[in-house]
Amino acid sequence: MNSFGIKLRFSTFGESHGTAIGTLLDGVPAGLEIDEAYIQSELDRRKPGKSEFETARKEADKVEILSGVFEGKSTGTPIAMIIYNTNQKSKDYSNIKDVFRPGHADFTYFHKYGIRDYRGGGRSSARETAARVAAGAIAKLMLQELDIKVESGICEVAGIESQEFDYKAAKTSIIYALDPKQESAQKEAILEAKKAHDSVGGVSRVRIQGVPIGLGEPLYYKLDGVLADAMMGLNAVKAVEIGDGILSARTLGSQNNDPIRKSGFESNHSGGILGGISNGEEIVLNVHFKPTPSIFKEQHTVTTHNEEVDFALKGRHDPCVAIRGTVVCEAMAALVIADMLLLNMGSTMEGVSKYYK
Amino acid sequence: MNSFGIKLRFSTFGESHGTAIGTLLDGVPAGLEIDEAYIQSELDRRKPGKSEFETARKEADKVEILSGVFEGKSTGTPIAMIIYNTNQKSKDYSNIKDVFRPGHADFTYFHKYGIRDYRGGGRSSARETAARVAAGAIAKLMLQELDIKVESGICEVAGIESQEFDYKAAKTSIIYALDPKQESAQKEAILEAKKAHDSVGGVSRVRIQGVPIGLGEPLYYKLDGVLADAMMGLNAVKAVEIGDGILSARTLGSQNNDPIRKSGFESNHSGGILGGISNGEEIVLNVHFKPTPSIFKEQHTVTTHNEEVDFALKGRHDPCVAIRGTVVCEAMAALVIADMLLLNMGSTMEGVSKYYK
Amino acid sequence: MNSFGIKLRFSTFGESHGTAIGTLLDGVPAGLEIDEAYIQSELDRRKPGKSEFETARKEADKVEILSGVFEGKSTGTPIAMIIYNTNQKSKDYSNIKDVFRPGHADFTYFHKYGIRDYRGGGRSSARETAARVAAGAIAKLMLQELDIKVESGICEVAGIESQEFDYKAAKTSIIYALDPKQESAQKEAILEAKKAHDSVGGVSRVRIQGVPIGLGEPLYYKLDGVLADAMMGLNAVKAVEIGDGILSARTLGSQNNDPIRKSGFESNHSGGILGGISNGEEIVLNVHFKPTPSIFKEQHTVTTHNEEVDFALKGRHDPCVAIRGTVVCEAMAALVIADMLLLNMGSTMEGVSKYYK
Amino acid sequence: MNSFGIKLRFSTFGESHGTAIGTLLDGVPAGLEIDEAYIQSELDRRKPGKSEFETARKEADKVEILSGVFEGKSTGTPIAMIIYNTNQKSKDYSNIKDVFRPGHADFTYFHKYGIRDYRGGGRSSARETAARVAAGAIAKLMLQELDIKVESGICEVAGIESQEFDYKAAKTSIIYALDPKQESAQKEAILEAKKAHDSVGGVSRVRIQGVPIGLGEPLYYKLDGVLADAMMGLNAVKAVEIGDGILSARTLGSQNNDPIRKSGFESNHSGGILGGISNGEEIVLNVHFKPTPSIFKEQHTVTTHNEEVDFALKGRHDPCVAIRGTVVCEAMAALVIADMLLLNMGSTMEGVSKYYK
Repeated sequence: MNSFGIKLRFSTFGESHGTAIGTLLDGVPAGLEIDEAYIQSELDRRKPGKSEFETARKEADKVEILSGVFEGKSTGTPIAMIIYNTNQKSKDYSNIKDVFRPGHADFTYFHKYGIRDYRGGGRSSARETAARVAAGAIAKLMLQELDIKVESGICEVAGIESQEFDYKAAKTSIIYALDPKQESAQKEAILEAKKAHDSVGGVSRVRIQGVPIGLGEPLYYKLDGVLADAMMGLNAVKAVEIGDGILSARTLGSQNNDPIRKSGFESNHSGGILGGISNGEEIVLNVHFKPTPSIFKEQHTVTTHNEEVDFALKGRHDPCVAIRGTVVCEAMAALVIADMLLLNMGSTMEGVSKYYK
Repeated sequence: MNSFGIKLRFSTFGESHGTAIGTLLDGVPAGLEIDEAYIQSELDRRKPGKSEFETARKEADKVEILSGVFEGKSTGTPIAMIIYNTNQKSKDYSNIKDVFRPGHADFTYFHKYGIRDYRGGGRSSARETAARVAAGAIAKLMLQELDIKVESGICEVAGIESQEFDYKAAKTSIIYALDPKQESAQKEAILEAKKAHDSVGGVSRVRIQGVPIGLGEPLYYKLDGVLADAMMGLNAVKAVEIGDGILSARTLGSQNNDPIRKSGFESNHSGGILGGISNGEEIVLNVHFKPTPSIFKEQHTVTTHNEEVDFALKGRHDPCVAIRGTVVCEAMAALVIADMLLLNMGSTMEGVSKYYK
Repeated sequence: MNSFGIKLRFSTFGESHGTAIGTLLDGVPAGLEIDEAYIQSELDRRKPGKSEFETARKEADKVEILSGVFEGKSTGTPIAMIIYNTNQKSKDYSNIKDVFRPGHADFTYFHKYGIRDYRGGGRSSARETAARVAAGAIAKLMLQELDIKVESGICEVAGIESQEFDYKAAKTSIIYALDPKQESAQKEAILEAKKAHDSVGGVSRVRIQGVPIGLGEPLYYKLDGVLADAMMGLNAVKAVEIGDGILSARTLGSQNNDPIRKSGFESNHSGGILGGISNGEEIVLNVHFKPTPSIFKEQHTVTTHNEEVDFALKGRHDPCVAIRGTVVCEAMAALVIADMLLLNMGSTMEGVSKYYK
Repeated sequence: MNSFGIKLRFSTFGESHGTAIGTLLDGVPAGLEIDEAYIQSELDRRKPGKSEFETARKEADKVEILSGVFEGKSTGTPIAMIIYNTNQKSKDYSNIKDVFRPGHADFTYFHKYGIRDYRGGGRSSARETAARVAAGAIAKLMLQELDIKVESGICEVAGIESQEFDYKAAKTSIIYALDPKQESAQKEAILEAKKAHDSVGGVSRVRIQGVPIGLGEPLYYKLDGVLADAMMGLNAVKAVEIGDGILSARTLGSQNNDPIRKSGFESNHSGGILGGISNGEEIVLNVHFKPTPSIFKEQHTVTTHNEEVDFALKGRHDPCVAIRGTVVCEAMAALVIADMLLLNMGSTMEGVSKYYK
């Protein structure tokens, strides 16, 4: 159950403090130019230790392609990519060996499997998301060929909301802020929490442009359903909205329906998806991240022997996981769209006949 | 792509105004008592035409089991169930034959498939969810054997929020309202919209009790991810929250983490899921439904020949799809939990050895 | 686990003596003309009771389409088909209620599930294959659009081998014999066994013409592997050969390799598949069926209480299951090829780009 | 499509002359002791260059575990294993860069993907099977815990058949011969073909003991069907038999049925599988390998530009792929049985209830 997607399917492996993490990306059409520098640049956007808004753990996150690429192009065979862990300080974690960190997966992994790699959360660490970003970068290369663009940014930190969504600005913001006017307040909220040994939540907004009409496989592999799974499955995510999301439940039908004109839709409350299928408009998602559970304040918890203790975490952690998380949201969105593109081929007999004749 | 689940897997078929709808439920363990009256009672909760808060279309929604049950018990083979459509007035739909209803899947189905069964939305109609409820009823019978309980109710209509969550009250409320004190205001909002030829949105809240620790298959078949997919894939749903959901992105880590004590968790902000795995607490979801797109006001739209028209829908529709939708949320939740229960068997070698020795 | 295929996926339901059997066919491209008379004609080829070479059980095997077809064409939504059982004489089976028939699945179903529908073998009966033939007929309609032809016939009965393979002759032979010169000897062998209350085995040969180069998804959804699964999964099948099959293990490389010329391959020892991918030549399979386990001679067996008994079966059975089985082999082959056609779309980035531009 | 299995699922990556090959094994129950030396010993059985009966290419086939194991035990997370290629002489292959080798997958890969890694067959090389053996070794460790034993040997080379099946002898035979009396004749046949720049075919026989009754998920994930897929999907395999296989089609029902007694079955013509489900007897398969297509005689073929040429291969190749292939058959059999063991948990409600209470 460590795979995602149907026709474009990736699997990941690896633990936070193991030898390496990596991904196997299966189903990439042959003949795609694989720009390794681009893949690395995507990883660089997610990698830790770039600023005071992130964990101090430094990882080069150098990706190596092991298979599936020949003379710079994909061959149709699985593309394996590996990232060796270099800066794992397992000693940091000796103090949590026997303790369940509140808000973490320690408790559930231990009870499910009866054994756990406690070093940095092992498999449950957000470190695994580097592998997703590597796979997502290749998905993005595919989408580029079809003029589909996936972008994202942070639209809320600690309740401080963006008033506008400037995806270009987000690219150069150290916290990927969508609204330059809110950026400094958002930064301040992060640093304040950090100083208080606490953490804050945030919201990533993802926008996908250029998606053709027709992506999504109803009724049980709908575009919105699969995007929701992809996002909710990320560490710390507790809510996902498509289009107007929660607001749409508070409007009237006459306000929420998007009128249709010859040239397209007059509004986009739906966020580009109707009946689980893309309608040609921008696809828009909001992904809500809880505050990092790793805080340095004392908390109530129990040991693996079910003894109650008061416990203050040590180590290096992001004060707001949403920041680097938004890069992962983009990767997941790209992987979903690319999978849906491949799945949609064959929707009509006319398309099939044309393909084979 | 009309199937859901891995070990407990159901597939559905059928169109709103076709001969029949139905489901194939595969993977039900053998020896489960199949109480047909119970299945019918679940369908009765969802069936249309019970009150002024629902569409006037009357369907008996009489379910018939075709296979997989012998002498009252499941045999381990697929359970097929069929519901014949009896009250389809296809004439109602002749006026939408060439028009895309705003907010509906008409537009996307037509463009994806090049052909569509326009009668009542065909496959994209919420009528299909009756098949889900039938499958969900059997999942609930499975869960009952393990003392797991899935319940739900409406916690918001047109922005009017519940202050308390009384699942018992919801069972007897005609609009499944969780808060008896808000019920009449919520009803009023629905009827007011209806009178104005408009519609309102609403929110279903689902609670699952008695779930053992350990359900969910990380990292790509997580319990929260799959629940999000299941819910977001329902007609009209635009947002899904687990536990505190959107609120958790606005709190501090120290507030949001649930402290652990010997006897369990001190709070349940997480909604019973950590790292994609159940932690033994109540699982709680909020599912946000947009207002019914079928409204009787004039709207801008285009025809299948891309001609602009102003169009006012006729026919019979729910003024608030969330109401009957909550029954479907319950069914989907039960199906997800039952699938996860089966998948979790085999998590440890100790469990496997014990099973076979 | 009652589904087969990935993009074209069918699921079946139903027991030999239950209410109905049926199939759900998912993934049929929209816009395919669904010729119901053709589907029925395929079922008629498989249906029992047509001659003394088959079981005396008479079933009309009248198929009804419940969904997925609108105005004569597929809509892209799942096509459900149902066949009601009409001539089930459950009384025939009261004598096997507590006895495991040798060579049958009675023993294994009982031990796996702890319960079994003993009437005619329940789910394990070859009656289920009618549902496969219905699904296969639609796959054949798809293949016809692409000039792909699936045919079959019986190339061996009771060790009497065909010297030639005349697929046209097979179509009109009551035992689907490929070699008109061997037909009478083969018939005699069947009737002789029948008279002796015994049964005989046989071999079906399937030929697929017009398959484009490139079908098959290596390395774990290879064309030959999936065909082998499809055929070995049929009741009574104990061996599957592709191309020269067993003989190829007894030749030299220099004899077995098919030389390639501009115009194609000089020979076809490979049976049209290299590296799990079609090479454009005829695909050829041999499918070996054991003799019908249902014989009327006394046999050693045990009861469900593990008491030893000598037991002679009563009822109506095919003296050679391979005969009607060959129609099912064709259906399965067609379903596999159609699935592979859809899966292969998207193998190259060039193909994907062309499709979307 | 580079994954196999459902609950125990492995994926492989890598090309013959790329950086590395490897596997990702997902679904291993937690707490299994992972004996790395054993895994290596299984790889050693398959590795090339051990004798004159094999290719001269020498590979250490040193396996490294990258994830999923902590303090010597499986953790329930995916186990990634990598084998770096060390002795790839790509120059050997410059002469086949533009030529399709007869009997190879060169032709089909090129036409399917429009690009191919020609070095040693790239992905289509049997080198990939080392990754299967690594995964299979872990499956075998699982099976050992349950007293299930998978063994194999060569029962036919160049038409020279074993008269007896001595699996112990096969373990120490350099060609894994099951019949010590036939071994020297079989060896001779291989060397003779080798001397003549030709190759021979062979047959692997696999035996699985200790399988509990009930494995196999009818009707479309049957034990025999999935084994057939697993074996037919191996390089060079052209036929698969279960139990008596082809012979069973030539016997009478009264001869072929296995009578049942209190203590078990009186014979095992069925090869341990009835209705796609294990019956508790030994499972027996024969897997037929064609002669190695890589021969050093001149052959007719075409170039990638479709020009006819006469071509004699150079390089290093096995004169009989069945020999090392039998180790891979074992691995695949072990993986299938282990997957089926996990899938079977949950067949009965009684089993589920017991597991959770």
